Amino acid sequence: MKALITGGAGFIGSHLADALLAQGCEVTAADDLSRGRPENIAHLRRDRRFSFVRIDVCDTKKLLGVCKRGRFDVIFHLAANSDIGLGTKDPSTDLRRTFMTTASVLECARLAAVPELVFASTSAVYGELGGRLTEVSGPLAPVSLYGAAKLSSEAFISAYASLYGLKARVVRFPNVIGERCTHGVIYDFMRKLDKNPRALTILGDGRQTKPYMYVKDLVDAILFVRKHAKGPFQCYNTCPKGLTSVREIAGITCAGMGLENVKYEFTGGARGWKGDVPRYEFDCSRLRKLGWKGGNRTSTESVKLAVKAIMECRTSGR
Amino acid sequence: MKALITGGAGFIGSHLADALLAQGCEVTAADDLSRGRPENIAHLRRDRRFSFVRIDVCDTKKLLGVCKRGRFDVIFHLAANSDIGLGTKDPSTDLRRTFMTTASVLECARLAAVPELVFASTSAVYGELGGRLTEVSGPLAPVSLYGAAKLSSEAFISAYASLYGLKARVVRFPNVIGERCTHGVIYDFMRKLDKNPRALTILGDGRQTKPYMYVKDLVDAILFVRKHAKGPFQCYNTCPKGLTSVREIAGITCAGMGLENVKYEFTGGARGWKGDVPRYEFDCSRLRKLGWKGGNRTSTESVKLAVKAIMECRTSGR
Repeated sequence: MKALITGGAGFIGSHLADALLAQGCEVTAADDLSRGRPENIAHLRRDRRFSFVRIDVCDTKKLLGVCKRGRFDVIFHLAANSDIGLGTKDPSTDLRRTFMTTASVLECARLAAVPELVFASTSAVYGELGGRLTEVSGPLAPVSLYGAAKLSSEAFISAYASLYGLKARVVRFPNVIGERCTHGVIYDFMRKLDKNPRALTILGDGRQTKPYMYVKDLVDAILFVRKHAKGPFQCYNTCPKGLTSVREIAGITCAGMGLENVKYEFTGGARGWKGDVPRYEFDCSRLRKLGWKGGNRTSTESVKLAVKAIMECRTSGR
Repeated sequence: MKALITGGAGFIGSHLADALLAQGCEVTAADDLSRGRPENIAHLRRDRRFSFVRIDVCDTKKLLGVCKRGRFDVIFHLAANSDIGLGTKDPSTDLRRTFMTTASVLECARLAAVPELVFASTSAVYGELGGRLTEVSGPLAPVSLYGAAKLSSEAFISAYASLYGLKARVVRFPNVIGERCTHGVIYDFMRKLDKNPRALTILGDGRQTKPYMYVKDLVDAILFVRKHAKGPFQCYNTCPKGLTSVREIAGITCAGMGLENVKYEFTGGARGWKGDVPRYEFDCSRLRKLGWKGGNRTSTESVKLAVKAIMECRTSGR
């Protein structure tokens, strides 16, 4: 099996590359290295089944060349802007890097006759709907441009699946954590604590409470969907058990870094930033019905595991 | 009140201009005249409260100039590709003309501080969901690029409303009919019957059954939503009573044109074209709860009225 991963040098993309190579696939990682990092895939460079192309996925002409040469069985489209706050400051960011990347990938899949697409979507498509979110929950009214661009991507993917015979799977991710992360609450906390180990500024009131999924568990779920979903277009939520508050994450991060008596300061308000959804809960019963047995690690266990894994990477210099 | 209508020389846009002027508003119509027609607004040219700018709405720089000079209270964003079949043949059509027009309008509203946006959405966002469609129905899986681009537009509008204080109203239209139409089943039938009054080729099996709304009734509904909806972001379905089949429309059109014994030929299959949703039904109870008393004309009465109005225009040379 030959796979293209857009955003393949990124946080989740590089873990997905690891998993696909472990399954015996050939993997091409496409990344413009705007957020992705060469270190994330440095360990794969010697693997002959792995290749890397530095490319802006929005460049449809170049990407089409990659697709025609690669003759891929599947594209995992993960390339996106992952910094929601940045997207709010400059609205062109998510339009271009989260949505137009999808439009480009879809055209390349159509023109190069790639039969299958797996898309990294997000809880942010639900906006502030509340309750236990299922795939049929609505109305979908995103409160961030990131969420808007992911929902727009889903919409075009659905139409391409219906019109051009593309097999498409959408997986809606919760918050994702683990080694190689380039953003998010744990990354942010560690960066701040490196600078000042005595005090930690927490965005919002720290009561934001969400499901946090360990990146390797997420990759398992993505590959499960890819293997088992039927029909031209399918969409699945995925998440671990339970939720974790940002305050809890602060405690786990400080403990993991061996820091005691860190003073918390809160910027205040319910949201961490403009476009933040302070609380949400995923219902994964649709994925369970498909036979998924994963997601048994709790969100809080996932946070502990992620902090441990990140600290090990830092210690070993990876 | 000062209003900008994008697609203001188009089918629905020009009727909306009529209605707003009748209410005493100042109206600027922006249109690239790719589908819009100068004849649709010719009767307004002498009205000093009306102005027309020929502009591609995707040209954000030019549109921003129009918005800054116009100091509008509201933008009615209707500019879009309305030919679903064309969108399937060239996927860049709906991306550019249905979605990127929205992205451009949103940026202009933000940068020129236009406080309010009313958006022309569509039943096509629901894809082939089936049942009586409400605003909370899901999952939204469009089967046309037109539907995908409209849903994407809604998603970005929702995020802009949440992030930048824009007041946004989305109205989901059913099939819309009436004089000045530039596409759609009645237009298509009349064009064919002009060429050959003895036989009529009907796309699909003619059993496609949908709600058809007379354009002036739709304009009333749009203005009702604009006047009464509260909060930063609201979405409403609107439709007439009942449904009409394409076969019935063929009969009404032939009768309206004074033609008898027209032989019907069917291209076959359930869909009229790729991306067609052959049957859908709208639930408008959310709009009713807001106090809407319109929509009492049935779909079939609307078809009869539309055919009559179009024939009168043809006779009078308008």
